Amino acid sequence: MSPRRYVRPVSADLTDVAIVGAGLAGLTAARELRRAGLEVVVLEAQDRVGGRTLNHTFDDGTVVEVGGQWVGPTQDRLIALADELGIGTYPSWDEGEHLIELSGVLRRYDDEYFGLPLPTMIDVGVAQARIERLAGRVPLDTPWDAPAARRLDSETVASWTRRNLRTRLGRDFLRVVVEAVFSAEPEDISMLHFLFYIRSGGSLDNLTRTSCGAQDSRLRGGSQEVSLRMAAELGDAVHLGSPVLSLAQSAEGVTVGGYWGQLDAARVVVAIPPAVIPRISFAPALSGRRAQLHAKMPPGYVIKCMARYQHPFWRDRGLSGQAASPERPLAITFDNSPADGSCGVMLGFLEGGHARRASAMSEVARRELVVSDLEAYFGPEAREPLEYVEQDWAAEEWIRGGYGAHLAPGTWIGYGSLLREPEGLIHWAGSETSPVWNGYMDGAVRSGERVAAEIADRL
Amino acid sequence: MSPRRYVRPVSADLTDVAIVGAGLAGLTAARELRRAGLEVVVLEAQDRVGGRTLNHTFDDGTVVEVGGQWVGPTQDRLIALADELGIGTYPSWDEGEHLIELSGVLRRYDDEYFGLPLPTMIDVGVAQARIERLAGRVPLDTPWDAPAARRLDSETVASWTRRNLRTRLGRDFLRVVVEAVFSAEPEDISMLHFLFYIRSGGSLDNLTRTSCGAQDSRLRGGSQEVSLRMAAELGDAVHLGSPVLSLAQSAEGVTVGGYWGQLDAARVVVAIPPAVIPRISFAPALSGRRAQLHAKMPPGYVIKCMARYQHPFWRDRGLSGQAASPERPLAITFDNSPADGSCGVMLGFLEGGHARRASAMSEVARRELVVSDLEAYFGPEAREPLEYVEQDWAAEEWIRGGYGAHLAPGTWIGYGSLLREPEGLIHWAGSETSPVWNGYMDGAVRSGERVAAEIADRL
Repeated sequence: MSPRRYVRPVSADLTDVAIVGAGLAGLTAARELRRAGLEVVVLEAQDRVGGRTLNHTFDDGTVVEVGGQWVGPTQDRLIALADELGIGTYPSWDEGEHLIELSGVLRRYDDEYFGLPLPTMIDVGVAQARIERLAGRVPLDTPWDAPAARRLDSETVASWTRRNLRTRLGRDFLRVVVEAVFSAEPEDISMLHFLFYIRSGGSLDNLTRTSCGAQDSRLRGGSQEVSLRMAAELGDAVHLGSPVLSLAQSAEGVTVGGYWGQLDAARVVVAIPPAVIPRISFAPALSGRRAQLHAKMPPGYVIKCMARYQHPFWRDRGLSGQAASPERPLAITFDNSPADGSCGVMLGFLEGGHARRASAMSEVARRELVVSDLEAYFGPEAREPLEYVEQDWAAEEWIRGGYGAHLAPGTWIGYGSLLREPEGLIHWAGSETSPVWNGYMDGAVRSGERVAAEIADRL
Repeated sequence: MSPRRYVRPVSADLTDVAIVGAGLAGLTAARELRRAGLEVVVLEAQDRVGGRTLNHTFDDGTVVEVGGQWVGPTQDRLIALADELGIGTYPSWDEGEHLIELSGVLRRYDDEYFGLPLPTMIDVGVAQARIERLAGRVPLDTPWDAPAARRLDSETVASWTRRNLRTRLGRDFLRVVVEAVFSAEPEDISMLHFLFYIRSGGSLDNLTRTSCGAQDSRLRGGSQEVSLRMAAELGDAVHLGSPVLSLAQSAEGVTVGGYWGQLDAARVVVAIPPAVIPRISFAPALSGRRAQLHAKMPPGYVIKCMARYQHPFWRDRGLSGQAASPERPLAITFDNSPADGSCGVMLGFLEGGHARRASAMSEVARRELVVSDLEAYFGPEAREPLEYVEQDWAAEEWIRGGYGAHLAPGTWIGYGSLLREPEGLIHWAGSETSPVWNGYMDGAVRSGERVAAEIADRL
């Protein structure tokens, strides 16, 4: 790959397709369009590719993923792509007992009931069955056609939960689940969107499982490797450090502009998170409906934290490294050690309100918060990691949050039909536009394939 | 006033304060800061001042307001400002019987009960009393400290309404009220925000009243006249057609940039709607929390429509011109004729989903929709207006919606404390930042005064 700054005057010859954003969606689109014989240019604001996937290399050479990382069954498009690129997968560590902290007491469990007391288990079980049943009826291409869609879209997951769970602990537990799945709080999310998202990934059970679920496996070399290899294939077509700040459509094409210069393209793919689309000046201006759609898709708030240890010491005590607590800021942890177990890596998420509050702290205080929660779960050995890394996705100015955007109440009903509808010569990609595995890496790949087919049909 | 394009190299001498946006908030701030002896530059993206106020002159010379227009008791800062600028007020037309359409039947009423059947009246009355009581307990400076704030912020007005109103008609009626007050739907709005907003304007009764309420009076010459006169006073300091696209802070000040050039300022006031703040590139990048706050303040959707007739013919039949319907797209109308009654102007609002759907129509079809609803309310004479004008605020690329922004569920609790908190040398104004008359012209003026005091204290 030889990315370089792209400075070129308005060209006499038109590029076939300009792609805004070199994440999984944009790069997949570029690759597919080139395969279809079209000329592509990919413009990326940041100095790297991969979007919401990002590798970090610890001092000992261990590569970890500080963005999206997992892959699981039915994520067929991501799996096929990784395969083509020669990137293997390996199972996430999922052996041993898990931990849950309830009312200040740590419990071990190894069944599917999360160590919940019986009344809570029943409460959560009944609610989950109801959720799975409702989710099963949401048509992925047209969620607004689901039974009672208008009503479901008019309330938050929080108010639905309050009505449908009877136990305090059950509600707290479901909050942890929602925050783990969305990095957003039950207050933020339309109940219809919650159901759509569950159906999009198969089932709630599927979204929350490690083995055989959405957290089943990891990609060798780290998830960013997928984007790195696609960019390498695309070579000079990928331009880093080149934010697109304007898209001006005429009958002939689209003039794509930024401080780096400008170029003309027959079609444009916008493959960036909805929260940063407003940074582009569109001419003619986007319709009011489109602008409001983007304004009603706020991102979640996640800080992903990892601590490296000499050894995955929790395994020695029969623990899987998976812990959860409805009370702690670090509400969810995973064993994220390398496949060969050459060192131990503990992964924890600060999500939603926890992340927001932690983002206001100093780096030192935040690390202390994370490490002391790890200590509470896994004992004093967790106290002194060899290395620590964290990634605040909301602070990234070209991304603004993670894992993905969610639809606020009223948005599916009011604006959903615009999600994939081209605006003239401009097409929309990104995981948020995918009916299947929406919000996941697989959804991003699918959106790139879909948009490429859309354009290849028209050029 | 002699506005001109502003092109100036980075200056050796610093402007004291650069103000982004020449609406009521920005212009008030500029005026106050200049009074405090400071040098100001106001940069406005559009080719006009006034923000969400805008006059339209019909062919016969009648001036009407296609943006914010009314002023009422306790809007003291706007009233004082208009007074200083020599702009008088006159009462909105509020004589005659009002119309309400219920289950397809038009009823006249002239009391405070909106012609509702008794059970509905009781239902709405009880709910309103509860709303007023809850609203009365919301502290305007810190709504997150209200009793049960977390719970109220975790649900939408729609889900609260469903639980608290027993009759279908009562719920439908409340929907019309919410949409008339916010131009957003009950699905979109946090219940805590709804209560805050009501308290901010005194009471729900106050917000919905014409005489002695928020729609009491109009400004002579149209509401934009306030901004036009402030801009005239400020003269060369106001620069039109000058969108601010970048704000770069250093220890010494802020470099303000755009295609028009750049300038240095000691402090900056951002006085534009939250939805368009993401169009500015900030360096250093805004914090994740700040960026997410803006992402969680979507604007309402309103198309304001006016039809001019030879004569306010509805008055002859004893009608006030005020009509409402839970079923019609044009859910609310007013008599907006000039003070001297020299012609008749009928004003109707398309709000929320009605506006969104109407915005997708052709101009001809939308006018037909509006005129046929006017005909349904006021009879065949409404069929042929002499002139028609409409303003879709969501389509305005530097505004993106109206009347104002509302806070989505979870936003007050999660982000509310950032609303007026300066980010380094950057201060925030605009009606959405005002504790009093939030979302109204008066709130905009108050926010301008507040931000000017904030800065004068520090320079």
